[in-house]
This record gives sequence, structure tokens and C-alpha cells, in this order.
Amino acid sequence: MFKLSLRLLQKAAATKPYANMLKDPSKKYKAFKGVALPDRTWPNKSITKAPRWLSTDLRDGNQALPDPMSIAEKKEYFHKLLEIGFKEIEVSFPSASQTDFDFTRYAVENAPEDVSIQVLTQSREPLIRRTVESVKGAKKATIHFYLATSDVFRDVVFNMSKEEAIAKSIETTKLIRSLTKDDPSMQETEWTLEFSPECFSDTPTEFAVEICEAVKKVWEPTVELPLIFNLPATVEVASPNIYADQIEYFCRNISEREKVCVSVHPHNDRGCGVAAAELGVMAGADRVEGCMFGNGERTGNVDLITVALNLYTQGVSPNLDFSDLQSIIDISERCNKIAVHPRAPYAGSLVVCAFSGSHQDAIKKGFLKYEQRLAEGNTKWAIPYLPLDPKDIGRTYEAVIRVNSQSGKGGAAWIILRSLGLDLPRQLQVTFSNIVQKEADLLGRELKAQEIAELFKSEYLTKDTSAIRLVDFEISKNKNKAATADVNREINTVLEVNGKEVEIRGEGNGPISAFLDAVSKKFGILMEVVNYSEHSLGSGSQAKAATYLNLKFRDNQGDEVSKWGCGINSDVSEASIQAIVTVLNSAVKV
Amino acid sequence: MFKLSLRLLQKAAATKPYANMLKDPSKKYKAFKGVALPDRTWPNKSITKAPRWLSTDLRDGNQALPDPMSIAEKKEYFHKLLEIGFKEIEVSFPSASQTDFDFTRYAVENAPEDVSIQVLTQSREPLIRRTVESVKGAKKATIHFYLATSDVFRDVVFNMSKEEAIAKSIETTKLIRSLTKDDPSMQETEWTLEFSPECFSDTPTEFAVEICEAVKKVWEPTVELPLIFNLPATVEVASPNIYADQIEYFCRNISEREKVCVSVHPHNDRGCGVAAAELGVMAGADRVEGCMFGNGERTGNVDLITVALNLYTQGVSPNLDFSDLQSIIDISERCNKIAVHPRAPYAGSLVVCAFSGSHQDAIKKGFLKYEQRLAEGNTKWAIPYLPLDPKDIGRTYEAVIRVNSQSGKGGAAWIILRSLGLDLPRQLQVTFSNIVQKEADLLGRELKAQEIAELFKSEYLTKDTSAIRLVDFEISKNKNKAATADVNREINTVLEVNGKEVEIRGEGNGPISAFLDAVSKKFGILMEVVNYSEHSLGSGSQAKAATYLNLKFRDNQGDEVSKWGCGINSDVSEASIQAIVTVLNSAVKV
Repeated sequence: MFKLSLRLLQKAAATKPYANMLKDPSKKYKAFKGVALPDRTWPNKSITKAPRWLSTDLRDGNQALPDPMSIAEKKEYFHKLLEIGFKEIEVSFPSASQTDFDFTRYAVENAPEDVSIQVLTQSREPLIRRTVESVKGAKKATIHFYLATSDVFRDVVFNMSKEEAIAKSIETTKLIRSLTKDDPSMQETEWTLEFSPECFSDTPTEFAVEICEAVKKVWEPTVELPLIFNLPATVEVASPNIYADQIEYFCRNISEREKVCVSVHPHNDRGCGVAAAELGVMAGADRVEGCMFGNGERTGNVDLITVALNLYTQGVSPNLDFSDLQSIIDISERCNKIAVHPRAPYAGSLVVCAFSGSHQDAIKKGFLKYEQRLAEGNTKWAIPYLPLDPKDIGRTYEAVIRVNSQSGKGGAAWIILRSLGLDLPRQLQVTFSNIVQKEADLLGRELKAQEIAELFKSEYLTKDTSAIRLVDFEISKNKNKAATADVNREINTVLEVNGKEVEIRGEGNGPISAFLDAVSKKFGILMEVVNYSEHSLGSGSQAKAATYLNLKFRDNQGDEVSKWGCGINSDVSEASIQAIVTVLNSAVKV
Repeated sequence: MFKLSLRLLQKAAATKPYANMLKDPSKKYKAFKGVALPDRTWPNKSITKAPRWLSTDLRDGNQALPDPMSIAEKKEYFHKLLEIGFKEIEVSFPSASQTDFDFTRYAVENAPEDVSIQVLTQSREPLIRRTVESVKGAKKATIHFYLATSDVFRDVVFNMSKEEAIAKSIETTKLIRSLTKDDPSMQETEWTLEFSPECFSDTPTEFAVEICEAVKKVWEPTVELPLIFNLPATVEVASPNIYADQIEYFCRNISEREKVCVSVHPHNDRGCGVAAAELGVMAGADRVEGCMFGNGERTGNVDLITVALNLYTQGVSPNLDFSDLQSIIDISERCNKIAVHPRAPYAGSLVVCAFSGSHQDAIKKGFLKYEQRLAEGNTKWAIPYLPLDPKDIGRTYEAVIRVNSQSGKGGAAWIILRSLGLDLPRQLQVTFSNIVQKEADLLGRELKAQEIAELFKSEYLTKDTSAIRLVDFEISKNKNKAATADVNREINTVLEVNGKEVEIRGEGNGPISAFLDAVSKKFGILMEVVNYSEHSLGSGSQAKAATYLNLKFRDNQGDEVSKWGCGINSDVSEASIQAIVTVLNSAVKV
């Protein structure tokens, strides 16, 4: 049985280290043809209510892990699914192993009354008996069986004709019915049947309808307890609009539509699993099967978190709670041993980050307008680049803006605002951003928030190690001048210059001009205020003033230079003097 | 300017560690309304030829990296893009930094003649001048400028009316035109203009057409050198069918359609970037912008590799060569410092893996049928669960099947076939798979191929450490019997039993029965052949035989047991005797 494939493998190995993509792939691959549905209606639809959700994290997700979950991990994960609000959970393939069977019992015994425990089985009698046994006593249980219906599966894998497949599906449905809802000893459970024609997306759609009709006739579902027809894109074989056509065709052609729950189960082989789920629901599906973060065989199942939060950002409650998304990321990474990608929608670590200067600027302006609108009673979210308020899923604004060498002035300013509380004047933002950009360029990487804060302090605040430091000062009215005179303030300042205390005096119309006068007298340098701004920092008795001073002066080559200094103090005068001392340190050699 | 947002932040921080998703999100988020296009035609279309591709890996991708690429990495990446076959590459935002400018010069000087170097600029004169300067002397260059056209961007970020935006776009186009195709000193370059109305997906579509008409009127494109209108889903705000409607509306309503190249630039905020690109092309777009592996701001740009290989599996050549996908993964991970997700379409490490037993079985059967079809001249690819032949992108079949505790018999058998060349009979597959499953359950993880091979050897092959080992044997005709008698073979065997040589003799109709006879005489155990199979291993003078024997006997409690043994030898008789010796070791205590 394996000899031919062995030869095939040996042949493959004998060719070059890698073979080539074909110039003309049409010889090997054929374009997928979907069902003809020129009068499709789904493109005019939108989703106005949440579908039913089925988490198959513990079955389809778990079976595709290099290291499947331990029992302890499965239990933890199961309780997380309940906490999020899943009401239908496929927990296992209980006939496959004792481990799976035992865990199914745990789920049955620990599920709340309104949660249906779903189990998967092949269409073979001993497996079905074991499967039904595994959920005995559940309040709600769903027996899910599947059968190959696509040409390639029937032909290659099972060697079964369409007629044989239908006969098998009838036989299996009869057996499940006799073991569940028709068994007088099994009446404590609300039994649901789910049938998956595999792989639906690659099955002639009219045959999928035909075999589902046969199953439905045997099961006899009701409006209250519909039969679930799960229509899996077991392998994603075409663009999602083609899948949507197939779903709409099925929904239109299955009889007693009201007694049927149409479920989609998209995989992600072409990267369109989310689109397939959404277009499928627009096309009439009532239910979506998938996994959190798109776990599952190969490229995985559709990511239910993305589908749910996509709905949420359109104003539709998904009936699932991802308020604490980080805890879900944590449990998923721990149990699945697969990291959530940094660019995964909603959950990725880089997803609420903006590195580009123009994006950062837009986001900041957006937050400003948003607060204004909120104050006016308009609660609608509209922040550039952020389709979802990070706060809704437990993420903070902190990470929104990050700074690399490509970032503009806004990013660094945001970091300083967030880390030091300093609200830099626009021109200082520009100046400081150049410094940050040079540093990022030099290091060839993103700067951490703390590095940016340190860079700011080192440039704009006086340090303990500065050559010139302020020790004390006193401002008094100049008694020799009239109280109404322009220049009527006098300053006496003690500086420490290279460790030696020096007293300097000057006068002006306020502390800044008086101190600049003292500086010019002592150091022979004329400094002029170009820009001044100030804001409070904190509130109440703890409040301080942050002062920003832009001074211009001539350097020792006689060129005019412009420098910024910043001072922070509970006394606004002292904050200003500190800012000047910072500039003085860079202006004079002492 | 920041004070309000600072307060907003403080307020957010003052609430619980995480806030809650809203029960009724319609108060905060509104459903996106697309352009009305009930007579859309794109759902009936399919993609029959590759679009133009624009790689913005080095611009949009790079700007969104926590650690942007070094110059050396950018150069390496650039050459990889050329090797893959990209003819349009956006390399930088050259007015943003000297680094970007310098790299642009490198790209201009090293681009082949048929490759257009694209650069991005804002609509500001000094930046535009610097941008044009950066590509001076290129054979082909594309100047790409963008302008806010969506309501939220015009309102929040730029405070610009629609009229002002149109005036600005005209002014910018005039300037670029005067600096490029109208400048007599710039004629060595074939100049293309690209304009992006930002964010197109959130812009009233009729206004996007209006502003593009204004740009086109000024630029005066030709059929030979069309003007590129890039219609970005800067932020993905709706399902991909709505984006496709917008694209079709634009394509239908822009005048002189033949002088315009419509480009899509989807981001992936809703996880539908690939679908948006594909539906956009069906809707009329000529060109797709994106990054390899979907790098880019936030959730990233559309992944061009997925879009290209999706086309390929439909029989359409993408005109891009991913034959050596691993080298692209390597360079991307090294330069971007972001790992490709194990479930990324086509490229993820788990994507050509099947862990589930039924999947593994189907894949093996599929390979068998494929080889049969190939022999019949049918070259069409149709392997269950594998939409693309892994070989086409330089992946081997080795990784296709992996074994965890959820795997069935097929997986372990495949590994043994691949690693030892042994083609196990079906019943041995079942027996061995139980052993493998128990071991995987015990270890709670996937078994490595080598571990499975070791498990097989330890169970079914005689080892140097076995208590009973074959030293030598000789088969002869029993001269006392007629040549035509049933039992006419005699065997003389030397065994090593606990280090001591022992000679045993028996007779039968062939080496197996004769050796079993010798065993029963020496060890008092009657063994009966239940199943025998054999295949050759290798070819020519190196060929060996692999023999599988299933023997039944009674153990010392008198219970009937069934055991498999395997022997490998260039002499088929010796292989069989080795297989029996393996079983003998487990059957008797010596």
C-alpha cells in the first residue's frame, strides 16, 4: 500500500534541494468552480445579531497541537470558555482515547445547565456507542458525526459512492437517534444532532443538500431543537464569496429551514477564514464554529475572537466577553504552547501601537476630539487608526504609541506625557524628536519609553552632576525703584559652580528677567526668552509647576543658538530658574 | 493640547484594572455603511491573471517594526524582493530621514531597468522636492503622495474641507509634474505618479472619485503610463465585500479608466486583508500593495505571499517566485525580527502538518492515488488537506505528518516509512500505533520522528542487548525425505542465549517453519504464523528484504498472545529468522 508513495518520496528527494514553482500552474492546479448563484442576496446583507458560537478549541484546536493539552490544562481552558460565555463547546473525540473520554465526563459533570457539551465521532457503530456513553447524563449534549461527501474524499479516502454515503448517513442517524432521544433511559438530556458533510466547500452543493435532507428525515428535528448542519470549509479551497454562495444555496434549498441550524466551520488555508465566516453568516448561517486565536489543523480554524470583536466594532454585541483579553492570551499561550502573533487582530502586541509619526499625531488629535465630543454627549468612538477602544478589551492607552527611528515628534512627546506627565510645547516636541530619532538611528532599534524619558531628563533638566546648579535664591522688591516701575524686582541667587558656591545678583521685571540679568553680569552671556510655557503637574498640595523656556544667545563662535530648558518645582519661579540653569550649563564652560 | 487627553488617560487608569466590553456596543460603535451598489458584478468574477504587485515591505513594513531594519538588512531584503520578481518596490519615505534618503539612492543605483522604485511623500513642498531628488536618475520611478480624504481624517487630523483637499491635491500634482515629467533635465526617468486618498475605505466613495479626477486632469496620464490611484483600506473598517463594492464603484465611475491603474492596499484590522485584496481585484483593481507575511502598521498590510500563492493554487501564475520559501522566511525573520506564525498560510511550520489520524490516513491515500494518476498522465494535484504541493515552494513531504497522542495508525506508519523505509502491514500499523499513542499520552507531548523510529526498533527488531540473538544458520535439504515431500527442509541454527552459544535444529517446508520447529524443540514453545509479509528495501546490490511476521503462541499463563517481529537482511530467510528471534525474546524467559 505504501510502496508507490515511497517511490514518489524517493523521487522527490532525488531532485534539487527545492523544486520550482511552475511557470504555468494551470497544468497542475485547476480553478475552483463554485455553485452558480447569480441572484445571490448576501452581498446586500449585514450582520445585525450575533450568531451561535461553537468553540472547538478543545477538539479541533487541541488535536492539531504538537503538544496537546494535559488534562489539567484542558480543565482550565474549559472553565475559561465558560467564563467568556460560550454556550456550545466541542470538548473531544471521546472514542479516540481514554483521556478524551475521561475529560468528556469532566465537562459533562461541570457544565452549567445552559451549556451544550458537543462530542465528535466517526460514522462507525462502536465509536458512536462509546461517544454517546461519554455524554450520558448531560443536561444538553450534541452528538456530531461527519461523513465524506466531497468527490476527492469519497473517491480517494473512502471509496464510497454518493448512494453509499447517503445510506451510511441514514444508518448512522438512526443509530444515534435510537441511542439518544429515542432511548427512554436517556431522557434527562436535551439531545442535539450535528452532521458535517465533509468537506462541504469541496462537495457539489446540491449533493450536500441531498444528504442533509436524508439525515433530517431520519432525525425529525423541531423548531425548538433544530438539527445542526455544519458546512465545513475543512480545507479552504476558494475565495470567501464562493463559500458564501454555497451557504446561501444550501440555506435556500434545504427544506424545513426553520428546523435547521446552519453552521459554518471555516479553515484558513487561503488566509480568508474570518471573511468566510462573516460572508457565510450574511448568506444565512446561524452558527460559527472555530477556535480562539484561530488554532486548529494546518492554518487553523477561523479565529472566533476576531469574528466576535469585528461584530462588536459594528455595534453588535457578540454575547461573548473579551473584556480581559490578556488573560485569554495568557491561557491560550500556556495551554496551546503557540504564541499569539504580534499582529493578530485585536490581540497582537503590536496592534494598538503606532510607530509612524503621522499615525501618532492623528491618534493624539483623535483622543482630544473624542474627549471634546464625549463632553458634548456624543459617545461614538472615532479615533484614527483605532477601530476598537483598547480599553474595552482591557488594554491600556500606554502602548498605543511607540517610538522608533521612523517616528515623528508626536511619539516621543506622547511618551514624555505618559511617563513624566510633561506636556511639551509644540516646538520643543520638534526639537526633542530630532534628538530621539538620532538616538534610535544610532542604536538601530526602537527606544523604550524609559530610554526616551532618560534622554529627555538628560537634555532638559538640571542634574546632580551638572557643573552649575541652583542652591538658593531670594526675590525682593527693589526698594530704590518706584512700585510702578518696569524693573522693580531684584534677585539674589546662590549657585554651585564646579562645587563652589557663588552668589549672583540681578534685576528685572520678574524672576526670569532678573535671573537672566544676574547671569549676564556673572557669565557675560546675554540670553533672551524666545518661548515660555508652563503647566501644572498633579493637583492639590502635591501640585508642581513644569516650566519650559526657550532661550537664544550667541555661542563662543558668535553664532546665534536656541536652547530649551525645563524646570519642575512646586514654586513656579524656581521652576523657571531651574530651566534657565539647564540652558546655562550647555551655554558656558565653567 | 495634551491636557485633555492626559485627563482622559488618568480617568482610564482610575477605573478597574480592565474595563468591560459594553453589553450594548451600538451606543459607542456604529455599523459601517458602504457605497450602494446593488448591481455589483464582482461576485460573478474570478481572477484569471496576476495583478501588478507593489512591495511596501521596506516602507510601510519597516516603519512599523519595533526595531527597523539596518541599512545592511534593507539592502539584503531589497535584493531578495528583486530575486522573487517584484517589479515595483516602495523603498522609503525619503524626506523623513537621511537614512531613508541614502537607502533610496542605493535602490535607484542598484535596481534593474524594469523595476520601478517607489517613494512616499506627504503633500508638502519641501518634502516633495527632497523626495524627487532622492530618485533622480532612476530608470523608472513612482512618486507616491497621499492626502486625507476621509471625514474623520479631514476633520480630526487636518481640519481641511473637501474643497481644500481637492485644491491641495491639484497643487501637489502640479508641483510633482513640474519637478518630474515636465522638467527637461529629468527625462532619463520614466515617471509614474501614485495618489492615495486616505483612508479610502472610510472616504465617501464619490468624493474619492472626485479628488482623483482632479489629480488625473492635472497629471494627464496615458494608456502606456497610467496614473496609479491607490485606494487604501488604511484601516480595515468593514467586511471585504463592502471594500469590493467601493472598488467596483470607483472603477466604474473614474473617467478614462484605461489611463488609470487602480491599486488596492488592504490592512488587516478585521483579519480580512487577503479577502479584501482578492475581492478588490475581482472588482476591477489592477494592482495590489502589501508586504510579505503581512508586515505593516498594527495588524499589518495584506500578506502578498498568501495572495500570490492563492492565485497559484487556482492555476494562475502570480509572476512571483516563492520556490524557496524557506529562504524568504529566514530573511524576513532576521530583518523584521518578527517570527512567521506557525499557522501562517503556506509558510507556517505547522501548515503542511497533519496530526489527526484520519487526516494522516487521507493524505497517504491521496499520495498513492496521485502517483497512479500521474502514471496515467493526469497531472492535476488533488491531495486531501493539501491545497498546494509542498514541493512547489521548497517544502518536503517529511513534515506532512506528525504524531501526537491524538494521531491514529497512519501517522506513526508514515514516520516509519520515511525514516526507516519500512512499509508496515496494516495490522502492524494498528498495533504499533497503540504503542506510540500510549507513549505520547505518557509524555504528554508530540513524539519526534526519531523517537518513533527508536520505539519501533526497540519493539520489533532484535538488538545487540537482546537475551537471544542469531549467530548463524544453515538450511539444507533433508536428504532422508523425498524432494517432493511437504517437509523437506532442515535448519541448523547457532543462537547466542545469554552470551552462550547454543545450537538448535528443526525441520519444515521452508526456513520459517523449520526454525519454528527448532524453537519448539529447544524452548518448548509452539509458535504459529498468523501473518507474513515482506518487501524489498533499496535496490540493486544494496537491496535488502524487510520481513514482518505475526506469530501467536501461549504465554506462561496459558493465554494466547499475538506478537509481531521484523527482520531486515539481504537474505530474505535470515530476515524472517531475525523476525522470529525478536518475538522469541519477548515470549520466553532465558
